[in-house]
Amino acid sequence: MLSSEEEEQLKQACIQAKSNSYSPYSKFRVGASFLFSNGEIVKGANVENASYPAGICAERSAIAIAVNQGLLATESIKAVGVTSDTDNVVSPCGICRQTIREFANLDTPIYMWTSSGAVTVRTLEELLPLSFGPDNLA
Amino acid sequence: MLSSEEEEQLKQACIQAKSNSYSPYSKFRVGASFLFSNGEIVKGANVENASYPAGICAERSAIAIAVNQGLLATESIKAVGVTSDTDNVVSPCGICRQTIREFANLDTPIYMWTSSGAVTVRTLEELLPLSFGPDNLA
Amino acid sequence: MLSSEEEEQLKQACIQAKSNSYSPYSKFRVGASFLFSNGEIVKGANVENASYPAGICAERSAIAIAVNQGLLATESIKAVGVTSDTDNVVSPCGICRQTIREFANLDTPIYMWTSSGAVTVRTLEELLPLSFGPDNLA
Amino acid sequence: MLSSEEEEQLKQACIQAKSNSYSPYSKFRVGASFLFSNGEIVKGANVENASYPAGICAERSAIAIAVNQGLLATESIKAVGVTSDTDNVVSPCGICRQTIREFANLDTPIYMWTSSGAVTVRTLEELLPLSFGPDNLA
Repeated sequence: MLSSEEEEQLKQACIQAKSNSYSPYSKFRVGASFLFSNGEIVKGANVENASYPAGICAERSAIAIAVNQGLLATESIKAVGVTSDTDNVVSPCGICRQTIREFANLDTPIYMWTSSGAVTVRTLEELLPLSFGPDNLA
Repeated sequence: MLSSEEEEQLKQACIQAKSNSYSPYSKFRVGASFLFSNGEIVKGANVENASYPAGICAERSAIAIAVNQGLLATESIKAVGVTSDTDNVVSPCGICRQTIREFANLDTPIYMWTSSGAVTVRTLEELLPLSFGPDNLA
Repeated sequence: MLSSEEEEQLKQACIQAKSNSYSPYSKFRVGASFLFSNGEIVKGANVENASYPAGICAERSAIAIAVNQGLLATESIKAVGVTSDTDNVVSPCGICRQTIREFANLDTPIYMWTSSGAVTVRTLEELLPLSFGPDNLA
Repeated sequence: MLSSEEEEQLKQACIQAKSNSYSPYSKFRVGASFLFSNGEIVKGANVENASYPAGICAERSAIAIAVNQGLLATESIKAVGVTSDTDNVVSPCGICRQTIREFANLDTPIYMWTSSGAVTVRTLEELLPLSFGPDNLA
């Protein structure tokens, strides 16, 4: 689990990420953030498309950014955060859980903040138990 | 939960489904089946693409088939089955869990058979807890 | 190109397909149809998801259905049709063009009907020139 | 069209992008780059997943990065580049063309370099004619 300072940084990164959301179709802004073992934070927002299935969720944007910074080749994911504009818990969708699964350990904590700041925390394994992953293809 | 006869039908449908798999890239055949409240079974296999992200998983093929038969407009999903050619438990990937989530109740059982016939059963909610779904967008 | 009778059948299949559309998010119903070398027609509608990228377009639904009927193992695609509820030409999105590319010849005609019945026809190669396909991975 | 200096920068960005490719399944590295109206270049590589459809192509990675830098809110796309490790022309797949379509003008040039440096240039409209886009949903 994170220190309260790290948790606050992860949360603020999620909130900032949302401001770059391109979501003209759903009007549903999502912001995600990843804390890496070296202390770096990478954030991402959702990027929609007129052909809905071509869209990219916030968590997947952030993963793409981290891979392209070379971060995932050397660092591990310490925690994941996600938030939206609603006061319900918004969790990563199944595609995002699958994307995180490719790169994170099963005990990685995922922080989900409502718009009023209430937090729910689950590990990746709790959100995607009995997962399908790289081992299944080996 | 299903009667042993229903379970056997669901399993055989999965096995048959696999024979239609188009998986030249992964060589990983998956077969899925859905049992509906009226007793009908719909089955689907994975359909890959040279552009990998354009592929369609087995469970999603089956859902597309059921929707296009008009089944999901009138019937409910009683159970889901999935199998592959390996002797490990192969569970629905995150995208598939999300796709099932759109149409099934959270307590729907999902049967996963290894190639030698061992079964693992989990409800949708167990495989995709704290899910993101239609309610989140309402 | 098709006989006028075949063209009419393809068009009616598209229109019928639309009635099974599950599109609560975009409210944009699409119907697609594929004519095979043995005279069979397969049709599909779009299947959306609360997590937009998990959705399946109409053309991709139809391809999944055809693969799962074993049709694509033995028959070739003679023509593709698509229609929606608008009076503009609605063409297959890029994902659909890519999906069709995996299974159809480049000279396959794609018929696009507006809601008032006006038709536009292009070959697959015209809609997806210089395409990325199975050959690129070989 | 670009100056020869801009073209060289775009090409080098593609080549550098490839080094961050995460493609353990296809072993097919792709690098993409986008030149913006303010002279900035954003680059991206493909990010695969054990569940193939959850992968993100190189061009889509780059778009996600640009959106999340806020670039697409203020700048326009001047040119797109793509390269791989093969000596054939590798063009953006249909999903990528659709993703670029959401953000670029139809006359945007797309540069495709083979591994030995030969270039092919097409506009977005040439690669995705009669496209489905935001206007279709309005």
